[in-house]
Amino acid sequence: MKKVILDLDTGIDDALALAYALASPELELIGVTGTYGNVLVDTGVRNALAILELFDRTDVPVYAGVTHASTKDSFEVLPVSEFIHGKNGVGEAVIPDARRQVEDSSAVDFLIESVREHGDDLIIVPTGPSTTIAAAIEQDRSFAENARIIMMGGALTVPGNVSPVAEANVNQDPAASDTLFRTAKDVTMIGLDVTLQTLLTYEETKTWHDLGTVGGDFLGVATDYYIKSYETNSPHLGGCGLHDPLAVAVAVDPTLVETLDINLKVETEGELHGRVIADETRINDPVKTAHVAVTVDVERFLEEFMTRLTGLAKNTAARA
Amino acid sequence: MKKVILDLDTGIDDALALAYALASPELELIGVTGTYGNVLVDTGVRNALAILELFDRTDVPVYAGVTHASTKDSFEVLPVSEFIHGKNGVGEAVIPDARRQVEDSSAVDFLIESVREHGDDLIIVPTGPSTTIAAAIEQDRSFAENARIIMMGGALTVPGNVSPVAEANVNQDPAASDTLFRTAKDVTMIGLDVTLQTLLTYEETKTWHDLGTVGGDFLGVATDYYIKSYETNSPHLGGCGLHDPLAVAVAVDPTLVETLDINLKVETEGELHGRVIADETRINDPVKTAHVAVTVDVERFLEEFMTRLTGLAKNTAARA
Repeated sequence: MKKVILDLDTGIDDALALAYALASPELELIGVTGTYGNVLVDTGVRNALAILELFDRTDVPVYAGVTHASTKDSFEVLPVSEFIHGKNGVGEAVIPDARRQVEDSSAVDFLIESVREHGDDLIIVPTGPSTTIAAAIEQDRSFAENARIIMMGGALTVPGNVSPVAEANVNQDPAASDTLFRTAKDVTMIGLDVTLQTLLTYEETKTWHDLGTVGGDFLGVATDYYIKSYETNSPHLGGCGLHDPLAVAVAVDPTLVETLDINLKVETEGELHGRVIADETRINDPVKTAHVAVTVDVERFLEEFMTRLTGLAKNTAARA
Repeated sequence: MKKVILDLDTGIDDALALAYALASPELELIGVTGTYGNVLVDTGVRNALAILELFDRTDVPVYAGVTHASTKDSFEVLPVSEFIHGKNGVGEAVIPDARRQVEDSSAVDFLIESVREHGDDLIIVPTGPSTTIAAAIEQDRSFAENARIIMMGGALTVPGNVSPVAEANVNQDPAASDTLFRTAKDVTMIGLDVTLQTLLTYEETKTWHDLGTVGGDFLGVATDYYIKSYETNSPHLGGCGLHDPLAVAVAVDPTLVETLDINLKVETEGELHGRVIADETRINDPVKTAHVAVTVDVERFLEEFMTRLTGLAKNTAARA
């Protein structure tokens, strides 16, 4: 079993990623860290705690991460994020607050200690901005050497989704993603290159609605909201992108994607800020620290996704 | 034997590409078309004719192509191009003018007629701007359907060489490259992604100088000039990029590179003009019309390159 930490800005597709991890017997989820992005840190942490309780997994601790980019003074949710994820971050799906609280210690400390303790046996899956991960790198340089990271973020071969060059997560804190790519020794990038190919539609969410369970209702209502935003923002796709769950699925089964080994950087200035591209100074370095997913087995992933999440949601309490 | 047309802006690495084709028994070079870019069309055509005569291949016809981008009124050689390729386009290497002349008919007509006649048995290798190819597409839509193209140009996963986003060939006429990628059914892109990995140094050119032949002297003098420009412009690389020859080498042996199947477009406006990137409207189209080289077997290519070109140059007249 692989140990996993999810670094989430929970968020609808973060919620689906969390559900995928909970539904995967191959993974031992040792903790969730909460970052900002789709939502404020507080909202994301609230959602992660509530979802874990909904799926009866109050054994998984949740830690609060850094609240904004180090290059900025504060963070506010972008209107586009609220449009996609709803005011409450989970598409206005209503689930009770958890009875327990976020942990006292920080996400950065938890990440550093976990890498020290578990090394290669641990995979960290960040699905939001790289701020908390970069803070861990700054605080403990051995973190960059030893952490295995499978991140959702970036767009290498396809246009961005917040600018022609920038994907939303990297766009929130380009300097942090740049630190990540320049220093971390093992980063798999699950970017828009592949996640815009893995689309979910109302046909699939109907399966969840039909379960008649609180878990099915939550997944169905939240994801329908998400699909609806795609109908407005990206009608040419014909569904919603399963960004964050794909990163978790690759942690379970790396053969779902083919990757390009490459050394990356992020542009941090001007019109190109947030662009992920090869670091020209390391083009001919035989050691490649990043592995960018460029193809994905869409059919197999969608089947795994539906089987796992439907199984998880089925085993929750009946609808009241 | 595969039939080939080279569309060259001859240019030092174009000269090396032409030599590679002449040295490859797998290829039947049925013609050279001349475009602008590194040099004016007239200069490039003059160089192609002179090089063909130097290597005793006056059986290969040369056609003049379009002299400037359709979106512009004229073309002047950029200072950076002159710095890289020299005033005469071949690094001030001196070779006699050919005794014969350029053909009367146009490059566009020759390309269209050749694709009509040979179809899939023909590979077109453009190593300059896409202007002449786009003109062929505009003039005869079946050209886009039936032409097999292996082009040198673009940068998908790495920064550009004339701007952070644009490679020199595509930058000369982004609209033409956009037409090419949006309409042509079979385009292999040999871009900076791979050509900045295939580097030549003075160690290799010494082999040519030592031959004591006019062919060896020409290749050696021209390429040394090219390497020298890289010492100034791209000192981190430690050699000159074998851009154009790699495209010809892939025409001979496609297994030299691994490619990513993708549908592409080119940005034609603003700061991003000249950027090659996935066409977001065709991300989930199962038919992929472009094949971008993302890895290259550097060692094997360099060995083929040196074996072929040295063999060709050896069989020319002794130095006077």
